[in-house]
Amino acid sequence: MTVTHAQGFEAAGIPIGLKSSGDPDLALVVNRGPRQNAAAVFTSNRAKANPILWSQQVIADGTVSAIILNSGGANCFTGSEGFQTTHLTAEAVGEALGVSAGDVLVCSTGLIGQQLDRSKLIPGVATAAAALTSDGGEAAANAILTTDSHAKTAVVTGDGWTIGGMAKGAGMLAPALATMLVVLTTDAELESAELDAMLRAATRVSFDRLDSDGCTSTNDQVTLLASGASGIRPDTAAFQAALVALCTDLATQLMGDAEGASHDITIEVVNAATEDDAVEVGRSVARNNLFKAAVFGNDPNWGRVLAAIGTTRAAFDPYAVDVAMNGVRVCSNGAPDRPREEVDLTPRALHLLIDLKAGPAQATIYTNDLTHDYVHENSAYSS
Amino acid sequence: MTVTHAQGFEAAGIPIGLKSSGDPDLALVVNRGPRQNAAAVFTSNRAKANPILWSQQVIADGTVSAIILNSGGANCFTGSEGFQTTHLTAEAVGEALGVSAGDVLVCSTGLIGQQLDRSKLIPGVATAAAALTSDGGEAAANAILTTDSHAKTAVVTGDGWTIGGMAKGAGMLAPALATMLVVLTTDAELESAELDAMLRAATRVSFDRLDSDGCTSTNDQVTLLASGASGIRPDTAAFQAALVALCTDLATQLMGDAEGASHDITIEVVNAATEDDAVEVGRSVARNNLFKAAVFGNDPNWGRVLAAIGTTRAAFDPYAVDVAMNGVRVCSNGAPDRPREEVDLTPRALHLLIDLKAGPAQATIYTNDLTHDYVHENSAYSS
Repeated sequence: MTVTHAQGFEAAGIPIGLKSSGDPDLALVVNRGPRQNAAAVFTSNRAKANPILWSQQVIADGTVSAIILNSGGANCFTGSEGFQTTHLTAEAVGEALGVSAGDVLVCSTGLIGQQLDRSKLIPGVATAAAALTSDGGEAAANAILTTDSHAKTAVVTGDGWTIGGMAKGAGMLAPALATMLVVLTTDAELESAELDAMLRAATRVSFDRLDSDGCTSTNDQVTLLASGASGIRPDTAAFQAALVALCTDLATQLMGDAEGASHDITIEVVNAATEDDAVEVGRSVARNNLFKAAVFGNDPNWGRVLAAIGTTRAAFDPYAVDVAMNGVRVCSNGAPDRPREEVDLTPRALHLLIDLKAGPAQATIYTNDLTHDYVHENSAYSS
Repeated sequence: MTVTHAQGFEAAGIPIGLKSSGDPDLALVVNRGPRQNAAAVFTSNRAKANPILWSQQVIADGTVSAIILNSGGANCFTGSEGFQTTHLTAEAVGEALGVSAGDVLVCSTGLIGQQLDRSKLIPGVATAAAALTSDGGEAAANAILTTDSHAKTAVVTGDGWTIGGMAKGAGMLAPALATMLVVLTTDAELESAELDAMLRAATRVSFDRLDSDGCTSTNDQVTLLASGASGIRPDTAAFQAALVALCTDLATQLMGDAEGASHDITIEVVNAATEDDAVEVGRSVARNNLFKAAVFGNDPNWGRVLAAIGTTRAAFDPYAVDVAMNGVRVCSNGAPDRPREEVDLTPRALHLLIDLKAGPAQATIYTNDLTHDYVHENSAYSS
């Protein structure tokens, strides 16, 4: 039941014709309280879409009554007309629910640079509000999809409290979130400032470590809504751990459904001088088209791993590094070790281990291979 | 005649069996003087191949008698055995030509992580030396190719002096040079320190602005050899301009033969606050897989241009930017302008103009689209 698994939430997902396919394209999630605490993190892209600009204002006071999300158009680089569309959408939600438009978050996803059709969107809000139910989470999860092949949802439970979530995103997956819309709900009793700190801590090691193609979206948003409906104040360490687990679960689901991918690649960087170094090294490999194309071809071309990490500023000696692929150490101290023929790349999962021998820190980055289908899907996207 | 067009140079290119195809794979270029001045620039990748480590020592005194280049293996991440191979290669050249091994530059290109076959390489040096002729430039240019479809050569002439050059490189083309081996020769009378300054100035605005796939090679080297055989000391401004023209010509040839590309993309960034900003903005687009895949599909998806440049630190307002593709201004002040249907992307050449409206500086970056063939060629490279 995803976002409606926690107590205090209702949701709906309906088709309003923004997508030419006729698939559901408008989702509404409402927090019925008693508390309406919230936190959100946004894309790091300086080119922020209109719904991001709006939502950054809404979240400032930590109070959110509802979040409305549309697929079928990003409402980005659409000028003042586009910002007005976002504003009118929030007002329509406020009117339908009897709440302030200033407590309504808005998310959009789809093609950049085209206006959303207000004649469909604004009436659609009332229809969505009328469709709200306490088991509408799955419908909402389906209505936010774009090139995703299926909905991504997850639930974790604690001692009397629950966190549920839905996510979309299948391309443009890069740091600081990535064509990624995520809504998490909990019935735990937590203040907005606590939610904010825990959400930032969780996204930093989950969604921020997912780097499908190095491209950062203009519309990313991860939102956490808390109703307090369980009446239980959780142990914060337990809640933080559960939130990390939930975010990692959803991030892994996004990786598994990335556009055109044929391999899910987990890059584990160990013995780095700092965690930042480990992240930089992992990300340099995740963004190396030559390595990613080799993985697509089931070619354990570890030289491309070393060439990639050689472009970073991380502290290590390129001629001390070890590299293992699916458990086979193909490179020791920057020289060939086991024959590359011993590496089996036919499974979808690839575990790449990079030992920098430079310190005690580590990090894991998640990515995909570069395939014919990735090129095809992204060349045909807007047509 | 490329590197043998200038007076004072001989060259050869022969097959010695490093390539399984039997194609030529060893090139030798010799400076017969009277001067043996030289300058070279190397990959910025910290993971430097053994021939780079060797050549950096050789160039230190600005004197170079010969340069030997092999395809069929990069001799990178091959440990001390690999460095010895490079050293022995230079000694073999020294012996064959009666010069010091310490004045012999070595370049290698091909697969990383495999030893070169010394039993073919060392005897091959003597064979190449015996084949040296004053019109051997074309043969040398052919012997350095890897996945290139054809040799890249160019010549410019000044007032009594000449500069000629050969280049290879068809993938991994990224800043700070890129699987790129280039040898330039001139008969002008110039000191090594002058050559160094002018070579750095020329590569900065030519080879360094070529960014095919964001991947930086371990083996890049651009070398300029000066024989002084013309007896003419050129006007330095004229020589500098000729050198920039020659390097830009060769860089453009590399772009036109990039692995699998179907479009040559010229990204012109104007009205930037600084030249560095212009380069960073251009490079962010050149490395955006989503934009590059869209170009492959003849889709003028300018939203991806703005999403890409939004990730940079350059000074500009994302909602003031104009974007034009092949002369059609599709975006004005961050909002839609002319309909995308007016853009014709069927020609191979795409001119992308980005007006930041932030200052007086500009830069041009050269790149390619992301195609099925790029993925295919790079997935099959080492097999």
